[in-house]
Amino acid sequence: MKITRPALIVNKERVKTNIDRMIAKIAKSCKNTGKNIRFRPHFETHQSAQVGEIFRAKGVTSITVSSVEMAIYFAQNGWKDITIAVLVNPLEIEAIDRLAGTVDLELLIDSPGIAEFLHRKLNHSVQVWIKIDTGYHRTGVEWDRKNLIFEIASAIVQSSNLHFKGLLTHSGHSYRAVSINGIRDVYEDTVSKMNHVRDYLKEKGFQGLEISIGDTPTLSVMETLFGVDEIRCGNFVFYDLDQVKRGACSENDIAVAVACPVIGVYPHRNEIVIYGGGAHLSKEFLEYTVDKQTIRIFGLPTFPGQTLDEWGPAIPFSYVHSLSQEHGIVKSYPEIVEKARVGDILMILPVHSCLTANLLKDYFLFPVKKG
Amino acid sequence: MKITRPALIVNKERVKTNIDRMIAKIAKSCKNTGKNIRFRPHFETHQSAQVGEIFRAKGVTSITVSSVEMAIYFAQNGWKDITIAVLVNPLEIEAIDRLAGTVDLELLIDSPGIAEFLHRKLNHSVQVWIKIDTGYHRTGVEWDRKNLIFEIASAIVQSSNLHFKGLLTHSGHSYRAVSINGIRDVYEDTVSKMNHVRDYLKEKGFQGLEISIGDTPTLSVMETLFGVDEIRCGNFVFYDLDQVKRGACSENDIAVAVACPVIGVYPHRNEIVIYGGGAHLSKEFLEYTVDKQTIRIFGLPTFPGQTLDEWGPAIPFSYVHSLSQEHGIVKSYPEIVEKARVGDILMILPVHSCLTANLLKDYFLFPVKKG
Repeated sequence: MKITRPALIVNKERVKTNIDRMIAKIAKSCKNTGKNIRFRPHFETHQSAQVGEIFRAKGVTSITVSSVEMAIYFAQNGWKDITIAVLVNPLEIEAIDRLAGTVDLELLIDSPGIAEFLHRKLNHSVQVWIKIDTGYHRTGVEWDRKNLIFEIASAIVQSSNLHFKGLLTHSGHSYRAVSINGIRDVYEDTVSKMNHVRDYLKEKGFQGLEISIGDTPTLSVMETLFGVDEIRCGNFVFYDLDQVKRGACSENDIAVAVACPVIGVYPHRNEIVIYGGGAHLSKEFLEYTVDKQTIRIFGLPTFPGQTLDEWGPAIPFSYVHSLSQEHGIVKSYPEIVEKARVGDILMILPVHSCLTANLLKDYFLFPVKKG
Repeated sequence: MKITRPALIVNKERVKTNIDRMIAKIAKSCKNTGKNIRFRPHFETHQSAQVGEIFRAKGVTSITVSSVEMAIYFAQNGWKDITIAVLVNPLEIEAIDRLAGTVDLELLIDSPGIAEFLHRKLNHSVQVWIKIDTGYHRTGVEWDRKNLIFEIASAIVQSSNLHFKGLLTHSGHSYRAVSINGIRDVYEDTVSKMNHVRDYLKEKGFQGLEISIGDTPTLSVMETLFGVDEIRCGNFVFYDLDQVKRGACSENDIAVAVACPVIGVYPHRNEIVIYGGGAHLSKEFLEYTVDKQTIRIFGLPTFPGQTLDEWGPAIPFSYVHSLSQEHGIVKSYPEIVEKARVGDILMILPVHSCLTANLLKDYFLFPVKKG
């Protein structure tokens, strides 16, 4: 196995450790609360049947995806219990119906009209979640719009092929929290609002509803989970610099790096140019304030390790400063730049592993350890 | 042909007009100066054999790409004269050599060491350009480092399988100019520096060297071209909002839009949520200052037109405000949001068409007009 172009290197040991940690947290939480929590990891992060097999080997059978296309891909790879965790796109109803005929399919809606639409259009039965907005303000019914929630619930149960599974939210506003305590507050607030809605619906006669939540920051920083029946985090399998900045993980938990060939070395400006640009890393950036100056970084460089799936710590005072489509400019300091050679490899820790993995999904490398 | 998911809609008429305009400019410039200018469009923008055929029908035979992979793809699609306009990546030397055996291949270098490396490793002959840095400061030898340029030139001509083609630059700093006059200044400065280097090498005995330049902003705003033998612009075939902002084109020249299904409508917050996120549009943004506030936009929404490849003008006071992996949030105003329906299509004008086309390269639609 040889690197010739930008490729996402997956460190399987770290992937396994990240999965094990989440599974152990769920087990501990179930023991503490005496209630069951289903692990339904989000496969949007990796979109890889091979990474999926690592989950399967750990006993995972339920998954989350973010498009009909991904659902079809994982269905073809033997997954039988799939939630498409974006609102139903009516234009894909035919593909959705076909899928519902082959796997246990779970869908999200946030209006009574779509419940009626599904009732009219589906030949196969599906599980339906009401998407609740607990503060992220992307999609979903605001948690306190009880009349609308009641209307949607009523529309769901009027249809024989829609099974009302429960209430689902994505607390993406945990990504805006500025501290670990802020992230914990998002978890507690989310769970409280979701249970409030469930209690309300229970009073109205809707029994046995589940609560599903899903963001990596809250599920990483909480030591035990409570008030939920299902968790759907995805990013935690790889983590990234964004999660490090938020306190959701440490640099050593990051399980992927982009191997990038060095194609230019410019000691007089302390820069190394890599083959690896916006088409590989994505244009997602992180802001860091250093000496009152805010800089945007697109990744942090590290040196390759002893084996292909290892890399060292982030090289100090060094960062990916800018990206064009195929190129990245790494700023560093004389000792590093003077030693760099065209043809070397730098391993770049990504800012947002989901977008990077999406770009490199045809270029995953899973090195196997010798011996 | 039916849209069900985010897809890049190509308006062929606008593509043809954009190509014709550039070809006419070249013809006029050749007539004015009495010198030939080769058109070697950059195919990185579209990466599509089908768009390539539109160029071929206009008489184009020479192309530019930005990776070995793209070169192989277009070679397989019948292109015989290909410049890989990034510095040689030594790790791909075997694929480069194979390509050089099947097409006229042109490569870029900016150090004597890589000339020697190519000499040792290549079995087939190639054309070689010295990459010159005229102010962009990404790759290339700074134009005034004459000793180094002489060293590289000497290394090239010492090898029997390297043919010294000339001097090539990418004036990407035209993207930092804040006015059309600023862009013109970049052109004039670039051409002046490049001719200065050529004159210097001519004095040293290197005859018949060509000059190749390549950015869309300068080549769009200059009315006639001079001082160059080859132009390699790519973005102009599609254009985008970034080029509109720079004055390189008008909104009506933009030849692609991303068709995005509406999946959520939220009148109380004046927002529409589309299926179309960072995985489709890319996270590239533009900054606009409105009422002393700087906002970042990720695209502008328009309504679909009478036929599938038409769209209206950008909807006023409306923009793509944020993107997650699969979702986009469009901010608009009551009259628009209240009329929007889940299942509608919005056509999003992209900020940077190259990155958007790269993400959607498997989802190009080329509607054919009826009648």
